[in-house]
Amino acid sequence: MRSTPRAETFPAQTPAAAQVFTTVLSHGPLTRLEAGRRAGLSPAAVTKAVRPLLAAGYLVEGGDPAGGTGSGEGPVEEARPALGRPAGLVRVNGERALFIGVKATGDELIAVLTDLRCRVRLARRTPLPDRAAAPALASIADLVHELLAHAVESGAPVAGLGIAVSGDVDRAEGAVRYSPFLDWRDVPLAGLAATACGLPATVDNDVRALTVAEQWFGAGAGLSDFAVVTVGAGIGCGLVVHGRVVAGAHGVAGEIGHLVVDPAGPPCHCGNRGCVEAIAGDAAIVARMREVTGHQVPDSAAAVALARQGLPGAREVYARAGEAIGRGLATVANLLGPQRVIISGEGLAAYDLFAEQIREAFTTAAFGSAARCDVQTRPLPFEEWARGAAAAAIQTFITENPARGKG
Amino acid sequence: MRSTPRAETFPAQTPAAAQVFTTVLSHGPLTRLEAGRRAGLSPAAVTKAVRPLLAAGYLVEGGDPAGGTGSGEGPVEEARPALGRPAGLVRVNGERALFIGVKATGDELIAVLTDLRCRVRLARRTPLPDRAAAPALASIADLVHELLAHAVESGAPVAGLGIAVSGDVDRAEGAVRYSPFLDWRDVPLAGLAATACGLPATVDNDVRALTVAEQWFGAGAGLSDFAVVTVGAGIGCGLVVHGRVVAGAHGVAGEIGHLVVDPAGPPCHCGNRGCVEAIAGDAAIVARMREVTGHQVPDSAAAVALARQGLPGAREVYARAGEAIGRGLATVANLLGPQRVIISGEGLAAYDLFAEQIREAFTTAAFGSAARCDVQTRPLPFEEWARGAAAAAIQTFITENPARGKG
Repeated sequence: MRSTPRAETFPAQTPAAAQVFTTVLSHGPLTRLEAGRRAGLSPAAVTKAVRPLLAAGYLVEGGDPAGGTGSGEGPVEEARPALGRPAGLVRVNGERALFIGVKATGDELIAVLTDLRCRVRLARRTPLPDRAAAPALASIADLVHELLAHAVESGAPVAGLGIAVSGDVDRAEGAVRYSPFLDWRDVPLAGLAATACGLPATVDNDVRALTVAEQWFGAGAGLSDFAVVTVGAGIGCGLVVHGRVVAGAHGVAGEIGHLVVDPAGPPCHCGNRGCVEAIAGDAAIVARMREVTGHQVPDSAAAVALARQGLPGAREVYARAGEAIGRGLATVANLLGPQRVIISGEGLAAYDLFAEQIREAFTTAAFGSAARCDVQTRPLPFEEWARGAAAAAIQTFITENPARGKG
Repeated sequence: MRSTPRAETFPAQTPAAAQVFTTVLSHGPLTRLEAGRRAGLSPAAVTKAVRPLLAAGYLVEGGDPAGGTGSGEGPVEEARPALGRPAGLVRVNGERALFIGVKATGDELIAVLTDLRCRVRLARRTPLPDRAAAPALASIADLVHELLAHAVESGAPVAGLGIAVSGDVDRAEGAVRYSPFLDWRDVPLAGLAATACGLPATVDNDVRALTVAEQWFGAGAGLSDFAVVTVGAGIGCGLVVHGRVVAGAHGVAGEIGHLVVDPAGPPCHCGNRGCVEAIAGDAAIVARMREVTGHQVPDSAAAVALARQGLPGAREVYARAGEAIGRGLATVANLLGPQRVIISGEGLAAYDLFAEQIREAFTTAAFGSAARCDVQTRPLPFEEWARGAAAAAIQTFITENPARGKG
């Protein structure tokens, strides 16, 4: 349940209007004709949908020399039409509304202020002194108010807040069912945050939120079927199938981290043995590196350093992790046959140490033409998780706005 | 590419009309209002869609005391409205058109004649003397012509032919890319069969076709996310996500049979070790049973008999197979979080021997609330695979009819 204390409303009266807007948002400046073709709508329907969006300043006429995609980054630039201002182009006015995204981990908060095209204007990172729900919420509210103060200067309204946490999150209900790193159970976070921050709030699983960001503003734009696999503290996976993020009927989906790749492998916190995460997650790599080298290995960075120094056995720790990740990717490819798999996450810092093993294990375990899946790596800046939360808020704003009587 | 030699055309001018028809087909007699609600369409749109379908005899007014679902079987009966003839009910006239479905295995053909509601009128099973593409096609054409002769008596037109084979099938192109059991590569089967049989032809992977049958006429009716897992010669999986069957960007999807559940397990024909199929497929069970018992074990039935007799070690062969299947199911649940998993296939004859292990392994390996997925078993009569092929033909007829200028 989203709560909407002082909502900026989005003037899309119909799902078709939201779809046209989303198409232009993801693809960049388009003619009405092309927007209609991509959204599967008639020119008349597009014209009707576009009118109130132009009137309210969410769309503007003309091309945008600054680049067509929401992120302004590389992968989808090619989808952008030639520069210049061909008659009839419409584009999203990114400055029309701002959004705040917050990622909460067990020990810190990361927050970004973005525009409507999910371009980051400001990023903040602050320790989380107490992870219990009430004090964590207070910390989140402090951070959000800090960003709101900056937003005031721009004159644009802040139209939504997104919060991303790892674990089992029921986005529709606005509740965190269980987050192991935060040790939260059944926290109705969206409602609490909306009240505390004075903004409509969306909560989502962090990997799903990142997947929304890739789908709308990143390497998944224009694809109907892709996966985002994140490597780091956990091994996560966001799935887009038939153009929509998979949420799971019971709140669980994309749990690649708990695929068992070696029944005789190390124990996992989930109770099984040899899960991908129990071999390739940061904690697993650090623990194994200690065993193998006898060094202290305080953290992932130290583990990477030891492997790069070529200590006996240290490279093998990463090789094994890469094999586990590659087999996880192959499982996704064998079951779903996505067009693309995007590997991301802070664990990519070690990518040179296991890239070859990921590739080899993927190719070996992929069945037949599933191996033709395009596997890409996409390093993430630290604020990317928070940007994912902002993308979820933008998605809510556009697709579930109370102006249509939903939400 | 479907080929349409002498096509009966389906009078749905728009995707919306096809959707209304499909809704009534899957759910049974509905009021226009209810059909619109389920299909997400306005009453006016439903009325417009229904008119030509009534005029052409595909829909008729009034309830149907014989039952609302296509199959007339158990699982979806509850979705059917109360009996009687409330004003405004429309239902599908199953007798309006007939369809032929053929399943080709490496050594036999199974064919059914169904009505538009996929109810089997006639089933045939015949050996396939030569599996090479040309003679197999001739055998298929003979069998189809036999069923066509029977269909003539009913007076209803036969509106389509569906052919299901295992392996990598490109339904959109009408081609079998690779079928290991038939040893076919790149056979443009739809076009060849359409010419040989004089009917519009659809080819699909057998498990996907079975999944269509469950989605439209079976235990998946009304669900947006479910999986069909088939146990037998192979271990297959059909997936429905966001209401549509997953086909895979490169033709591979649902390959649960080649998930590696034990890297130290027996070698698989795919080149890996310890795949689900290499442990739980019929051939694997028979081979393992020979090793364990020292008996001849000519086939699956003999393996089942030995296990039921309680020979030392024989039950363990099935226990291990059940564990592999259960872990495969858990992988599907962890990645996709379906509402339901339907276990089916000829291997269910041994279900009592491994049901407990399937359940236990599933529960152990399912992550968090993914374990809440509804796991059902649904024994299949031998003609069910052919019925799946007929369901694919019905789907093509309704959704890709040339009357709308597609296909």
